[in-house]
Amino acid sequence: MATAEKATQKVDLSAYCLDVAQRARKASAELATLSGATKQQYLRRGAALLRQRQSAILAANAKDLAAAPQFGLDAAQIDRLRLSPASVEAMAVGMEAVAAQQEPIGQVIESTIRPNGLEVQKVRVPLGVVFFIYESRPNVTADAAAICIKSGNAVILRGGKEAANSNRAIVDALAEAATDVGAPADAVQLVSTTDRAAVGYFLTLDQQIDLVIPRGGEALIRRVVAEAKMPVLKHYTGNCHVYVDRAADLAMAQRILINAKCNRMGVCNAAESLLVHVDVAEAFLPAAGAELTKKGIELRGDIRTGRLVPDARPATEEDYAAEYLGPIMSVKVVDSLEDAIEHINRYGSRHTDAIVTKDLDSARRFAAAVDSSAVIVNASTRFNDGGEFGLGAEIGISTDKLHARGPCGVRELTSYKYIVYGQGQIKE
Amino acid sequence: MATAEKATQKVDLSAYCLDVAQRARKASAELATLSGATKQQYLRRGAALLRQRQSAILAANAKDLAAAPQFGLDAAQIDRLRLSPASVEAMAVGMEAVAAQQEPIGQVIESTIRPNGLEVQKVRVPLGVVFFIYESRPNVTADAAAICIKSGNAVILRGGKEAANSNRAIVDALAEAATDVGAPADAVQLVSTTDRAAVGYFLTLDQQIDLVIPRGGEALIRRVVAEAKMPVLKHYTGNCHVYVDRAADLAMAQRILINAKCNRMGVCNAAESLLVHVDVAEAFLPAAGAELTKKGIELRGDIRTGRLVPDARPATEEDYAAEYLGPIMSVKVVDSLEDAIEHINRYGSRHTDAIVTKDLDSARRFAAAVDSSAVIVNASTRFNDGGEFGLGAEIGISTDKLHARGPCGVRELTSYKYIVYGQGQIKE
Repeated sequence: MATAEKATQKVDLSAYCLDVAQRARKASAELATLSGATKQQYLRRGAALLRQRQSAILAANAKDLAAAPQFGLDAAQIDRLRLSPASVEAMAVGMEAVAAQQEPIGQVIESTIRPNGLEVQKVRVPLGVVFFIYESRPNVTADAAAICIKSGNAVILRGGKEAANSNRAIVDALAEAATDVGAPADAVQLVSTTDRAAVGYFLTLDQQIDLVIPRGGEALIRRVVAEAKMPVLKHYTGNCHVYVDRAADLAMAQRILINAKCNRMGVCNAAESLLVHVDVAEAFLPAAGAELTKKGIELRGDIRTGRLVPDARPATEEDYAAEYLGPIMSVKVVDSLEDAIEHINRYGSRHTDAIVTKDLDSARRFAAAVDSSAVIVNASTRFNDGGEFGLGAEIGISTDKLHARGPCGVRELTSYKYIVYGQGQIKE
Repeated sequence: MATAEKATQKVDLSAYCLDVAQRARKASAELATLSGATKQQYLRRGAALLRQRQSAILAANAKDLAAAPQFGLDAAQIDRLRLSPASVEAMAVGMEAVAAQQEPIGQVIESTIRPNGLEVQKVRVPLGVVFFIYESRPNVTADAAAICIKSGNAVILRGGKEAANSNRAIVDALAEAATDVGAPADAVQLVSTTDRAAVGYFLTLDQQIDLVIPRGGEALIRRVVAEAKMPVLKHYTGNCHVYVDRAADLAMAQRILINAKCNRMGVCNAAESLLVHVDVAEAFLPAAGAELTKKGIELRGDIRTGRLVPDARPATEEDYAAEYLGPIMSVKVVDSLEDAIEHINRYGSRHTDAIVTKDLDSARRFAAAVDSSAVIVNASTRFNDGGEFGLGAEIGISTDKLHARGPCGVRELTSYKYIVYGQGQIKE
């Protein structure tokens, strides 16, 4: 390609991105004051149109599936890309569930009457414009759009190129739903270019975009954090621990351990590391280790683990810091609750960590001192999830502490303003 | 200076900054689980020591005052730098007031019992380590330290070089208080070098520092935002508006206008711009304009303002966007409430904007549509302040929407974690 032609394309691309972002900003101002009833109609109409257009959506998806091999997708990725009548129905049901959630915008979070008679209300408002970057699964398109609409935010969706046709069919249905109910059609926009440079342009538009949510691998998140001029909702790794305390019910501990590790290994809230108090190591580790091994899990442990679980290989420092997302687990025998806490705060990723114990003080100390988005007492790490916590649909899980931590649903995409009602008060 | 010597100094400085930040991180882990009672003792002991050491603090302050001319400080700046027995007492009282606030850490913000019996608690926790950059007034040192201690955060204080001796005396008293009550002495650290490069080093330490709060001019804030690898609590300009609606009580409107503009002109919540509905312009503007002029305020208005206020000079686009912080005010006659809202959202700085009206719909529409941290109905803009809102002492005002908006006190320096109590639940 000639240099001049490349330069023209660059200008076109940046102009396109700016236009999308400005439309989103404009739509967000309208959305912010749209009534809860209109947003519900919008979501329900969207669900109805997804159902009506099921065959068109499946046809678009078939195109994506046909092109999948040329993008180098493996069988698991193609499986995630695939839609079915049941999955289109699930998207529609998901949108209706979000519609049915309590209206967040305008909610008075708290209010005070000041001694001078001023009534100070803290009122929930949308963030503005969200830029959402995600990968293959097209059903995420409908979920993310629903969460943003409900929270009064305009959203710019940047899906993967491998799902471009499916995403377009879904977003077109939502645009028609917007028009039908009098909501801004630009509330939900799909980036229509798959040029990777577009992401870079969007990340500079901090006048238009209030928050970026990158959902994908660590490399994507690090790139976004490095380039973004606006805040980023980050979800780094999930190196989750199960700590079996001296006072644990060992049968419960084994059930929780097996569930946390084996229920679904490729997800962020699966356990990657097992810590066992030295006083129960002998009673717990041989049987628990054997069951993990039977389930195909490779164990990597310290010397004391090796003595009790002959199959375990030696663990390195890297093992204790690893998020395997697969059939490997690190193991360590610790001398005390404090050692377990220190180990987790040192090697963990502040995501989800569990303790199994019958001792109240141990439970409370662990819960207070482990610096993670979720600390679970006597249950599986797999429960750290917006749905399980009762937050409704989630757009991501934050491993940050600022703004939102843990599962992020509708409410985590909001801010607040103070509205103050007076009767002519002036400051002395 | 020889190049090698410079290089050594650079290494020393970066090593010093890293050491300070690592100490702060370590102290923050201790602080996070310190009991509310111990934090209260810490703050009260700090207040007592400030009182005991009043003469030493004033002597340190006298050194700073003596050096002030060589730093080029003007009379107003020297005045802000000056401490007195009364201001040392005020610092102590301020610390005691923060001590008396409700303990924020460990508070269950909300809790749900899930259908499977899991009890999900959302519990308030500290952010971790705060890096606070500020200028001349030494009393800010005690305020900021108190807010951080109460919220369980370690703080790295970077004060101005012109207040170095005063700040050191105050921080030394707080370090002794920490030791006296068994709190970590590194909870409150003062950066002991006034080398500007130190700020740059700290801004790269995102593994140790969770939040930066720059309190100062826009240039400082922009520099910090550009360099910081961690989140920044931003406080940009305050271009605040008073909008006099068609349905305003005009006598109230004039009182509010004069107070908002003239009560204290150099602060962020002072009004900079006046908008008047065309239907009341003739009844309102001549008298209000005359009173402002009498108080020495120069008015810059549109053509319609000029017809009603002969003294007014023509306003430019820049005038409508300006934060004067002094005796100038922009004025515009608008055709409708919607025009006022559009003007504010276009030219304003999302800080504080007031409407004067008796009309309920106008008040509600203005409050919902103006995208500012505080919207004031029938009162002065000057009330946007942590103390006036009942938040207690504030460490800054955020013009951001993410994390915290408006005045930031103890609670705004916290995050949360989920603590989940189960009875052996596993995920199906």
